[in-house]
Amino acid sequence: MFVPKRIVEEKLRQILSDDIGQGDVTAAAVIPANLAVKAEVIAKEQGVAAGIEEAVFIAEYLGLMVKAKVVDGEKIKGKQVLIQISGDAQTILSLERTMLNLLSRMSGIATKTRMLTERLENAKLKTKIAATRKSAPGLLYFDKKAVVIGGGDPHRLHLDDMVLIKDNHLAIVGSVEEAVKKAKAYGSFTKKIEVEVTCIKDALKAAEVGADIIMMDNFSPKQAKEAGKALKEAGFDKILLEVSGNITSDNLLEYAVAQVDIISLGELTHSIKALDISLEITTP
Amino acid sequence: MFVPKRIVEEKLRQILSDDIGQGDVTAAAVIPANLAVKAEVIAKEQGVAAGIEEAVFIAEYLGLMVKAKVVDGEKIKGKQVLIQISGDAQTILSLERTMLNLLSRMSGIATKTRMLTERLENAKLKTKIAATRKSAPGLLYFDKKAVVIGGGDPHRLHLDDMVLIKDNHLAIVGSVEEAVKKAKAYGSFTKKIEVEVTCIKDALKAAEVGADIIMMDNFSPKQAKEAGKALKEAGFDKILLEVSGNITSDNLLEYAVAQVDIISLGELTHSIKALDISLEITTP
Amino acid sequence: MFVPKRIVEEKLRQILSDDIGQGDVTAAAVIPANLAVKAEVIAKEQGVAAGIEEAVFIAEYLGLMVKAKVVDGEKIKGKQVLIQISGDAQTILSLERTMLNLLSRMSGIATKTRMLTERLENAKLKTKIAATRKSAPGLLYFDKKAVVIGGGDPHRLHLDDMVLIKDNHLAIVGSVEEAVKKAKAYGSFTKKIEVEVTCIKDALKAAEVGADIIMMDNFSPKQAKEAGKALKEAGFDKILLEVSGNITSDNLLEYAVAQVDIISLGELTHSIKALDISLEITTP
Amino acid sequence: MFVPKRIVEEKLRQILSDDIGQGDVTAAAVIPANLAVKAEVIAKEQGVAAGIEEAVFIAEYLGLMVKAKVVDGEKIKGKQVLIQISGDAQTILSLERTMLNLLSRMSGIATKTRMLTERLENAKLKTKIAATRKSAPGLLYFDKKAVVIGGGDPHRLHLDDMVLIKDNHLAIVGSVEEAVKKAKAYGSFTKKIEVEVTCIKDALKAAEVGADIIMMDNFSPKQAKEAGKALKEAGFDKILLEVSGNITSDNLLEYAVAQVDIISLGELTHSIKALDISLEITTP
Amino acid sequence: MFVPKRIVEEKLRQILSDDIGQGDVTAAAVIPANLAVKAEVIAKEQGVAAGIEEAVFIAEYLGLMVKAKVVDGEKIKGKQVLIQISGDAQTILSLERTMLNLLSRMSGIATKTRMLTERLENAKLKTKIAATRKSAPGLLYFDKKAVVIGGGDPHRLHLDDMVLIKDNHLAIVGSVEEAVKKAKAYGSFTKKIEVEVTCIKDALKAAEVGADIIMMDNFSPKQAKEAGKALKEAGFDKILLEVSGNITSDNLLEYAVAQVDIISLGELTHSIKALDISLEITTP
Amino acid sequence: MFVPKRIVEEKLRQILSDDIGQGDVTAAAVIPANLAVKAEVIAKEQGVAAGIEEAVFIAEYLGLMVKAKVVDGEKIKGKQVLIQISGDAQTILSLERTMLNLLSRMSGIATKTRMLTERLENAKLKTKIAATRKSAPGLLYFDKKAVVIGGGDPHRLHLDDMVLIKDNHLAIVGSVEEAVKKAKAYGSFTKKIEVEVTCIKDALKAAEVGADIIMMDNFSPKQAKEAGKALKEAGFDKILLEVSGNITSDNLLEYAVAQVDIISLGELTHSIKALDISLEITTP
Repeated sequence: MFVPKRIVEEKLRQILSDDIGQGDVTAAAVIPANLAVKAEVIAKEQGVAAGIEEAVFIAEYLGLMVKAKVVDGEKIKGKQVLIQISGDAQTILSLERTMLNLLSRMSGIATKTRMLTERLENAKLKTKIAATRKSAPGLLYFDKKAVVIGGGDPHRLHLDDMVLIKDNHLAIVGSVEEAVKKAKAYGSFTKKIEVEVTCIKDALKAAEVGADIIMMDNFSPKQAKEAGKALKEAGFDKILLEVSGNITSDNLLEYAVAQVDIISLGELTHSIKALDISLEITTP
Repeated sequence: MFVPKRIVEEKLRQILSDDIGQGDVTAAAVIPANLAVKAEVIAKEQGVAAGIEEAVFIAEYLGLMVKAKVVDGEKIKGKQVLIQISGDAQTILSLERTMLNLLSRMSGIATKTRMLTERLENAKLKTKIAATRKSAPGLLYFDKKAVVIGGGDPHRLHLDDMVLIKDNHLAIVGSVEEAVKKAKAYGSFTKKIEVEVTCIKDALKAAEVGADIIMMDNFSPKQAKEAGKALKEAGFDKILLEVSGNITSDNLLEYAVAQVDIISLGELTHSIKALDISLEITTP
Repeated sequence: MFVPKRIVEEKLRQILSDDIGQGDVTAAAVIPANLAVKAEVIAKEQGVAAGIEEAVFIAEYLGLMVKAKVVDGEKIKGKQVLIQISGDAQTILSLERTMLNLLSRMSGIATKTRMLTERLENAKLKTKIAATRKSAPGLLYFDKKAVVIGGGDPHRLHLDDMVLIKDNHLAIVGSVEEAVKKAKAYGSFTKKIEVEVTCIKDALKAAEVGADIIMMDNFSPKQAKEAGKALKEAGFDKILLEVSGNITSDNLLEYAVAQVDIISLGELTHSIKALDISLEITTP
Repeated sequence: MFVPKRIVEEKLRQILSDDIGQGDVTAAAVIPANLAVKAEVIAKEQGVAAGIEEAVFIAEYLGLMVKAKVVDGEKIKGKQVLIQISGDAQTILSLERTMLNLLSRMSGIATKTRMLTERLENAKLKTKIAATRKSAPGLLYFDKKAVVIGGGDPHRLHLDDMVLIKDNHLAIVGSVEEAVKKAKAYGSFTKKIEVEVTCIKDALKAAEVGADIIMMDNFSPKQAKEAGKALKEAGFDKILLEVSGNITSDNLLEYAVAQVDIISLGELTHSIKALDISLEITTP
Repeated sequence: MFVPKRIVEEKLRQILSDDIGQGDVTAAAVIPANLAVKAEVIAKEQGVAAGIEEAVFIAEYLGLMVKAKVVDGEKIKGKQVLIQISGDAQTILSLERTMLNLLSRMSGIATKTRMLTERLENAKLKTKIAATRKSAPGLLYFDKKAVVIGGGDPHRLHLDDMVLIKDNHLAIVGSVEEAVKKAKAYGSFTKKIEVEVTCIKDALKAAEVGADIIMMDNFSPKQAKEAGKALKEAGFDKILLEVSGNITSDNLLEYAVAQVDIISLGELTHSIKALDISLEITTP
Repeated sequence: MFVPKRIVEEKLRQILSDDIGQGDVTAAAVIPANLAVKAEVIAKEQGVAAGIEEAVFIAEYLGLMVKAKVVDGEKIKGKQVLIQISGDAQTILSLERTMLNLLSRMSGIATKTRMLTERLENAKLKTKIAATRKSAPGLLYFDKKAVVIGGGDPHRLHLDDMVLIKDNHLAIVGSVEEAVKKAKAYGSFTKKIEVEVTCIKDALKAAEVGADIIMMDNFSPKQAKEAGKALKEAGFDKILLEVSGNITSDNLLEYAVAQVDIISLGELTHSIKALDISLEITTP
């Protein structure tokens, strides 16, 4: 998910522009023009930093001097200075909220993801935590990047990078078997094929007709384990197993112990707890 | 916040386009072209519906037949059908996630807001719940609209519609008094002036030089009550009082009892619990 | 109305791009590539400079060296050099007309506004001159900014920053009283409420139900004075009074003497006399 | 200058969107949703209608029913109904100002142009009135179209459709002769070549090296007549003669009598008197 | 690569808008407004139709009546009518060239692709023809879609849908082995990994560390065959083999006979022979 | 066709952005961040360089150091280094294909154009080679510029810079005479008028009513010569003659010998042979 700085800037400029509207009337009225000040972006609670790169890009784009004191993915503590900024006061104040909204959302996502990935790592399990496409509308790039920074897998980036056959596709096509066959026949060889199944029998059929990844929807850890076993016994030891649905912090390890390869969670990006981060002017 | 349908459509088209990328490879490979199907958008849990209008706009824009079964702001139950859709299967499947991301985020925000506003209403208190600008990046319009649907006040829509002097402005200008004076002198008569204060003394000064709204930052309910009393005694009975910071579901009523006019909460829009909503193809 | 430079640049780039089309065929054919020249932007008549900031932004954006010799709002004389530019000849010639169109329109607006505000200041009157939304299509930002530079108030910036109930709203709602009540009930506490009235009786009603500003449409100076008096007698001494319609340079002072707070004039932005400004290449 | 409706709509949508911002807070607060009303666009003074097509396009685009009662270019009287509209009240009120700004500016330009072209026609003179590129920033298309509707020639549409060598090009190239030669050598055969001259001698030189049109800058009517005569005597009877600069309503006929082909006036588009046009809700 | 019609329309609108510029001056000057005519899009030579869907989309978008007489992928003969259009004459004439440019390029690509795929099919070989990213700048979507219509595989759609390690990546990373290991470690499980190799040894190494597809750069048919054999003997019978470079119509079958899975050709999209297609007005 | 660098950058940014999508997953996975490398853009075959300026613009825009070793229009040999680049490895690799697609297409067009123009120059003929609007969709600017770099004339840049009456216009208007008359009456004096004719009689009529350029459609060299002779004999020695249709490398000289002024060829831009150009990382 490498995107050249100038392309990211354009996304950020649009976000800022939406907030600016016809102009920041507060900065215009109470802050002198061309006044140089310094400011710090400070974490108010511990977590994992994300969005630092974007914050630096947009601040530099606006002509500010910026110095990141942490890198994306770094663990941060409360009161820690994340970024030092200096430059035009009106510009800093107009940018403040946009920058903090980015940082606090992305850091919130990264923090939650890291918490889960560490739980797996601590248990010496190789299962991966993955995002879904359940992001805030229009924020696929930033949300997925935050998951990656937190140690998770971004999963499908959008609709063009993978064949992912879900319940609604199956409702139309009729069967897992038929759907995967169509994907093999009409899809590009460059794309992996993943299919959602609701029982072990369908998992086996999917494997037989060539699915690369099998998503077990709402399987219990026990069912997931059995599915994995059945697939291995049938010789499909290279197929990846993903579970999705009903997974919580509490039962996460049970799934991982069941040796699924990927656990994907919509809540990583659709239900956020923003990390508390603020900006403080340090020199008037 | 009325926006003509066609202007909203353009925002929605951009969000959808980002998800589509170079094309939906799954729909292309496994779903027949020009196949008419029916689908339902169904709530999986109770809450307050929001984003229904947007969902209808984008579906109609794509040429689908849509029938909303609830209106924005309506209370919904689990398993309730929110929207019925019919039309081209590939189009519905390509739209599904974008539509659900909008609905589940906006409904999540509206549900949380309604929960808080009802708590105040049930206690027969007139205090209003308000949003802040702490939205997801770029989603000011949708997030604010969801708060309004939930019964809250959108507060400042972005940087151009109100003078809101916060701690960082004060750090530069030096005093509440000076900042409000500048806002009166250099701002437009069309804008209300709100200023953040950290003590009752500053609240009184702000009132004296003409602030319309006083935001009490991190005041306890007791302090807030005292500030209100002091202002009334000084004859400033038309000034609105807003509290912000450290407000939780638990102490919300205490603030309201203290007769503050507005309680604003960043978490309404920065820390979301998405409402669980899904789309189901009902006829293959 | 502070807008960060890079956001303004984007607006200016679009304006320039529209003029460039598929390319400047004259500069391409007759001017050598990569030839460095100097140029001056010169006022051909006296007035008030506006658009200097925009001119500098767009010239710098294109890689030219620019030095502003005056600041926005400064009085300028005929033959006065406003800006010195040096750099690539083809670029300067391609930019010339776009830059001059901005400068001459904005300076024309600022000059007219200043003329009127000075008339009031000279008479020691505190009444403000204000713009309306009657700008050239799409030029709200530049037109309003020019009015501010000329000493006027920008009034409402667009449709999102103030509730302004006009004749057509009233034609639907039925009465001033009802309309203002609705605005109080359904609008945000962050927005001022202004309402247009056609008689003193309605002005009083508007005040009683909480309007912040009353716009007296086509009132004579005498009527305006009476309205102000009636409102003060009824205790509404904080309500702002605005007159609009039928105001000319001749009767401007009469209205101001009548102690209205704001005189708004559509002609400031819809009927322009551009200030004559030209660009001259000074070194071949 | 034919532009398909859908392309014009996109320009108009951007203009409207800029005015809407985060939403029309007045329509939202005081006007019921989904209320059907009727409205009329009415001229408040006589003139020439222009912008009718654009007004219809944008209103239809927003889903309103629209009926134009006049066509672009038609003479209109005070109190005349120009357009009838019916549909959603909030939409009509949000569109009102954008639509009127377009109509009043374009009609103002068309009215002024028609006044001048009729003066020439009444005197049985074939000289044409032409616009320049001195439009409001970004409004080349609408301003030029209004001139055409008024009976004028749009002149160069922007920088790509004609070679027009002006004083600043000459300051760099050195001589009219050299500049036109370069244009012939390096420009495309598809473009006409016009060159600005300040004396008859240069006019003759320009003709000799192949200019198609000669722009006489600040020539008196007498000088213009002599130039025309000199060119004819030299056999250049197909070259078009344009005068520009210092032309007023008073001396317009003198130039025309001097048999120049084109009189171009910057003031047609840079110094506007908007035609007074309003919208009135006719059924509540 | 399914893209909803309205998203494709937006791409097409931009292409058309670029051609229209400030307006079609020919249609405006010589064609009456609002004149209904009929037209036919006719093939001037045989080939495979592509771009029909896009042509229909853009024509309908502009308000024309359109009837496609062939579907994308259908073989067409010289003089065959592809599309019938009726509606506004000025609109049809303004659209003509944009529509034909799309049709003739896409049909040219599809025709060439079909010619190659048929050669393989006729020889009963299962090798696939694939595109590369060597499209015309900005036309990835249309060029890839045309290849698919012609029976080819679109290959990677752009940079986000597959890991494709090429010579320049290897020049930095050092070895095929190291690069593929990194891709496995840091890439998402959702993406296939392809790597370019220049010798059989590297092909084996790539397979050992987990590459999904091996691109043999400039291999002779004999070398390609040996590589395939070596991989199968080593047990890597599920790895896909792609050849690229130096493939011509003449040696295409030799590679296919060598049992490579995919033959990718840059020339399919970078070196085009447009299919000759024209539009004819059939009723004046 | 001079376009300021920053305007071209915007076109290039959009092209790059389309290729980047949600991010370059290969560069992200296998290439270290912030690694400085050097690279060279190298011709793999001889031809004429074009697109060098664009390649430099986009590389500089992305923050890379770039040094062009050739200028647009220069003849290049196989293995010749065209551009040296240094900077961030991930950025260079993400840009590689977009840059090469531009360079190879534009150089391919310039090379073909130069080949034809040189054939005419070598025969001491003054006939010009010209492009048409038959470009790749959306690439008018780049395709036309490449033709100019190759020594050809860009012809009409798009629909706004010239009146060009073609067969379909004539099918509606009825006759060459009538169409040219309308163009003279309703078109601007700033535009040349060209008309397509199919016989000498129509060529004469077109000349009589004032056409500037006559396009002889599918004339044989002999017919073209006769047409030229007839026009000269009738005194129309300033009218330009263009031939179009059925012109090949073989009969090109015959047309030129027939003294037509312009030979326009659609294949210059619709049927491309891309010049083989590659980028090589030179320091790991």
